[in-house]
Order: sequence, then C-alpha cells, then structure tokens
Amino acid sequence: METELKPIEWKNHKLVLLDQTRLPNEMVYEEFETAESIWDAIKVMKVRGAPAIGVTAAYGLYLGIRDATENSFEDFWKELKKVSDFLASSRPTAVNLFWALERMEKTAIANNHLDVSELKNVLLKEAIKIHKEDEITNRKIGENALTLLHDGIGILTHCNAGALATTKYGTATAPMYLAKEKGWNFKVYADETRPRLQGSALTALELQLAGIDVTIITDNMAATVMSQRKVNAVIVGADRIAANGDVANKIGTLGLSILANYYNIPFYVAAPTSTIDMKTKTGKDIPIEERDPEEVINRFGQYTALKNSKVYNPAFDVTPHENVTAIITEKGIIREPYEKNLKDLFEESKIG
Amino acid sequence: METELKPIEWKNHKLVLLDQTRLPNEMVYEEFETAESIWDAIKVMKVRGAPAIGVTAAYGLYLGIRDATENSFEDFWKELKKVSDFLASSRPTAVNLFWALERMEKTAIANNHLDVSELKNVLLKEAIKIHKEDEITNRKIGENALTLLHDGIGILTHCNAGALATTKYGTATAPMYLAKEKGWNFKVYADETRPRLQGSALTALELQLAGIDVTIITDNMAATVMSQRKVNAVIVGADRIAANGDVANKIGTLGLSILANYYNIPFYVAAPTSTIDMKTKTGKDIPIEERDPEEVINRFGQYTALKNSKVYNPAFDVTPHENVTAIITEKGIIREPYEKNLKDLFEESKIG
Repeated sequence: METELKPIEWKNHKLVLLDQTRLPNEMVYEEFETAESIWDAIKVMKVRGAPAIGVTAAYGLYLGIRDATENSFEDFWKELKKVSDFLASSRPTAVNLFWALERMEKTAIANNHLDVSELKNVLLKEAIKIHKEDEITNRKIGENALTLLHDGIGILTHCNAGALATTKYGTATAPMYLAKEKGWNFKVYADETRPRLQGSALTALELQLAGIDVTIITDNMAATVMSQRKVNAVIVGADRIAANGDVANKIGTLGLSILANYYNIPFYVAAPTSTIDMKTKTGKDIPIEERDPEEVINRFGQYTALKNSKVYNPAFDVTPHENVTAIITEKGIIREPYEKNLKDLFEESKIG
Repeated sequence: METELKPIEWKNHKLVLLDQTRLPNEMVYEEFETAESIWDAIKVMKVRGAPAIGVTAAYGLYLGIRDATENSFEDFWKELKKVSDFLASSRPTAVNLFWALERMEKTAIANNHLDVSELKNVLLKEAIKIHKEDEITNRKIGENALTLLHDGIGILTHCNAGALATTKYGTATAPMYLAKEKGWNFKVYADETRPRLQGSALTALELQLAGIDVTIITDNMAATVMSQRKVNAVIVGADRIAANGDVANKIGTLGLSILANYYNIPFYVAAPTSTIDMKTKTGKDIPIEERDPEEVINRFGQYTALKNSKVYNPAFDVTPHENVTAIITEKGIIREPYEKNLKDLFEESKIG
C-alpha cells in the first residue's frame, strides 16, 4: 500500500470511490453510475467525512439526472429535485451534503435557459468544480492552521478529517501535511474513534503512508496523553457548525473539548465554510444520526457483548462554542464571539 | 447462559476460574493446580479485576507451595517467598495482588511454629478466608454506596468492577445488585472500555444476566449521556488508591472524572480497603502497566490499523483525588481531605 489514496475520482464517466469500509486491510476502488448506489455508499460509509460526502453527492446528483429524458426545464427540474431530496436522505448530520446539493440546484436554476442536454453538462462541470475547490480550500485551511502551531508540537486528532474525508489534504490533517512539507518535527496522536475506528483504520493509515509520526490510542486514553503533555493542541474536523459556533462532529469530540479545556490545551476545529450552516442557529438544532447497535457490539462477525444487548449509538455529538478555541476555515481563523464573527465572515466574503 | 457466573471457585483441591477472555461468547471454566499457570491466568487476564486478582494470587501461593518438600520453616519460607515474588510479578498496578500475597506471608510467619504440612493447611484456610471475606466486603460496599444513590437514578460505570472482578456483587456494581434486590427502578450505562471491552463483554453481561437495565455505550459517548442528564452518578472501581486519595483504575477513568466534574455529576470510587495502599503516597508513585499494542489494533485475528502502526497502550490511568467525590469502602464513605481521612480510617479500624 504505497500508492496515493484517491478517495474520490471522476473517471470514464463514472465516479470511482475508495471503499473506506474495507480499509486498512484492502484497497478496493468501486465504480458508481447511479444515484441509488451513491446513496448506499454514503449510508454504509464507503465514503464518509463531511467534505467528501458533499463532493460525492454532487456527482451523485449528476448521475441521477444524466439519463433523464425530460425536455422542458420544468419537468427536468422536478426530476432533479427528486434525486436531490433522495440523496439528501442518506445521512442527516453533515451539512456539506445539503450544501453541495443546494449548489447544484442553484446551478440548474441559473442555467434554466439552456437545453436540458447542455444543462446536464453544466451540472457535471459544477460537480467537478466543487470537487477541485475542495483541494484548494483544504490547503488554505492548512496554511491558516499552521499559523497556530509550531515545530516540535504534539497534536491530537479524532476520527478522520483527513485526505480520506476530502479530496486531498483533509481539514484537520491539512496542517500536518503542510508541516511535513516544511520539514517540521512533530507527533500526531490519533484516537482510534469507536465504534467505526476511522482513527486507526483511516487517519493513522493515511498519515503513516505520508511518513508522518502518528501513534494510535484508544479514545479513553486522550486524557492521559493530555495530562502527560504529549499533546499541545487538539484539531478536529466538523460535520456541521451552527451560526453560534456550536460544532457537530464525530461522537467523542465533545468529551475531547472538555478534556482539552481542563488541561488548557487549545481545541481547534478545522472546516471549510461549506460546513458552517448559518440557517442552524445552535447545536440544539442539529439532527444527530443514530446508527445500528451492531456497529458497537459486533466486529468481524463476532459479538463482543451479548447479542441482544441494549446499545446507544449516536454517531455525532455537539461541542458548545465556548469549548472551541478557534474555528479554522479557508477564509480565516474565527474566534469568540462566534455568532458575530461568523456573521461578519459570511457578509464580508459573500459566501452562500 | 442463565447460570450464575462463578469467577473463582476452590473445588476438589483445584482452583477453577471462569476464563474471562472468552466471554461473552463462551463460558469456559478452567482448572489450575500450579503457581505458573495462575501467573499466566493473571497476566493474560483470564482472571482480572483487583479483588479477584488478590483472591486468585492467594490460592496461587498455596498451590505453589503445596508440594514443597522442605521440612524446616526457614527452608519452606524461602520457597514460599520465591513463589510469592513470582506471582507478584504478574501485573504491576493492582495493589490487591501484593496485599493478598503479603497477608499470606504474614500468616506463614505467624504460624512458623507449626509443622510445614500443618502450615500448608493454615495457608489454604487463609486463602479461603480472603476469598469469603471478599463477598462480605463487597456487600458492605454496596450498602454504603446505596446511601448515596436513589430510586430512578442513572449510573455510569467503566470497565468491570463487577461480580466478575470479585467473588460476588463486585465493588462498583454492588449497589446495583442491592438496588435490584430492593426493587429500585434504575438504569446503568456501561462504557464498553477499550481496548479489552470489559464493559460490554463483562459488565453488561453480568448485569443483563441479573435482569438489570444496562445500556452499552462506547467510551467516547460518556460526555453525551452526561450532557443529556441520562446519568446522575458515576461509580467505578479501583486498582490502587494512594494515601492521598489518588486513584489508579482502568484507562479512561481519569477522563470520566473530568467529564463528571464538568457536568456536576458525583464521581464515586467503590473499593475495599485492601485496595488502599498507604505505602503509596500519591498517584505519581503508582506503576502503570503498558500492554501489548495488538490489544488495540488487532481483534479476532484481524487488524483494524496497519500492522506496523505505533500504538500507546497504558492499561490504567490515575485520577487525582480532587476529582473524586467520595471513596466508598466496606468500612465507610471517605471524602476530602483524603490524606487525613484515609489515615484516620486505617488508624481507627486498625487495618493492615
């Protein structure tokens, strides 16, 4: 496994996804040509990570309308909206999914004067644009994040907000890749991130392949490495950031933010502005996906608890904004007061 | 699996242990007749939990000297000391191991006037006494703990400080079994407890078999259930309590204590006085066992990260006494100032 990981690729009129459920043991690329199969890939987490879900959904929408036979924009729009709503139902928490679909919808509306066949091409171009922008965005996030870090640092991260969650660089991992380019000497601690183990299976994998010094710990060891001062900063990604700065991210993030605050370690959230949802007022308004209990008590077909055990399996949690030292976006670093500063960011940069 | 779980039983001149590495899928009882096999059972965690390790080591010491051919006390003592030191090397953190071995040694010395064959019988009787006392001790811990809890409560526990970690009742679980006897309506949340999953494989198992309402969560969900007020008290066991009240317990306990304090939820440690080591001044003096990286990245023979990954795997952490609301022992409930109150407890009750 020494080739570069390509989580998402548009190739020969098909979407090619690296099946992340089979990592780290197998590197299997799967081709997708329908919105239905894309929906399933998002649902079962063959592709995951907020930015990657957004990019995938944009391609999924194009694949869903590519063979549409409608001739009028009105009829075509109805079909597109149906596919878009369908894809939006795959997972509820990451806002990039809705953001990408909305951007595709807006592109359709803005080009409603075109022939449907031309419009389809415009939509494919928009999906490719969303895809390419992601890489540029992440590099900028990395550059901004790097100003908060220093040579010799120890960084703790949770889940995978890495290249595998995006198209390249990742969000939380972007400064790590850039620090590596600069020749910094630094260490990364990766929470394994139960129940799906994205930390050990994905984050540790991609950082190891990039030659970065990464150590896997179980989630419940985070307090210990913090107390030992092995960690000087925590950087995580986000699935949705509310207008007041509350952050929905992979389950376990909330606990980490409390521990980091207790140990006076800065707690950073790295995310593109597409993850910030100004329509969501606070974290309380973010729907939290609950997933199959089997994820917790069954591994490789074997039960690690009695089969009929009661299990609670929320996939995300909400970190209150007061626990967040800074939100690092491609457009700059945002700090308290988040409500005002996020509002200003969106107004100044005319995003969304 | 509806029979009562018997973690430790002395039967037909053999020690019978329930192999806890094979739970929850298989209930296998294994017989032990040598100190070497007992050492191995403790090391690989066929038997685990501070009180259970102590009881097992006491029997192990007897098994190790049962066939000794020495006639003089002096020669017998040398042999006994050798076996005791050997057993003491199995695991470094839980003090009950050393406590039980020391008690057996003292019993030998107090009876040095006896024939070696008689002395062997006295030592077996002492091991059985340690074993029986454990059950009584745990019931008292449960009664004391119950005074801090109430009907309708939600309790979070970590790892297994249950019947399977002792002979009966457990320490942290003792009030749960007694609350069940009283007909209380209450809920337990069991952290699965990575990397060895004692929470899902052992705690949830034994509580379910006892008809107690228990829900398994991954360790990183603890903050979420606390924030949702599903949990009104945290109760954990201990592997060693220092003279100042610092608590060494299963990795993850430290983080839980910080989260509980953040959410103003009482954080209780339930342990017999044999877990309190007045010779250990503070938590800094407690040796923390580091275990095989494979425990973290290999499950059922399959890797969940690259095989050559760097892993940090400390088995325990130390919770500073200021995070502990109370220590619940069989002799009463101890609160701050721990240094003074623990000293008084040992002086008044003439323990040790």
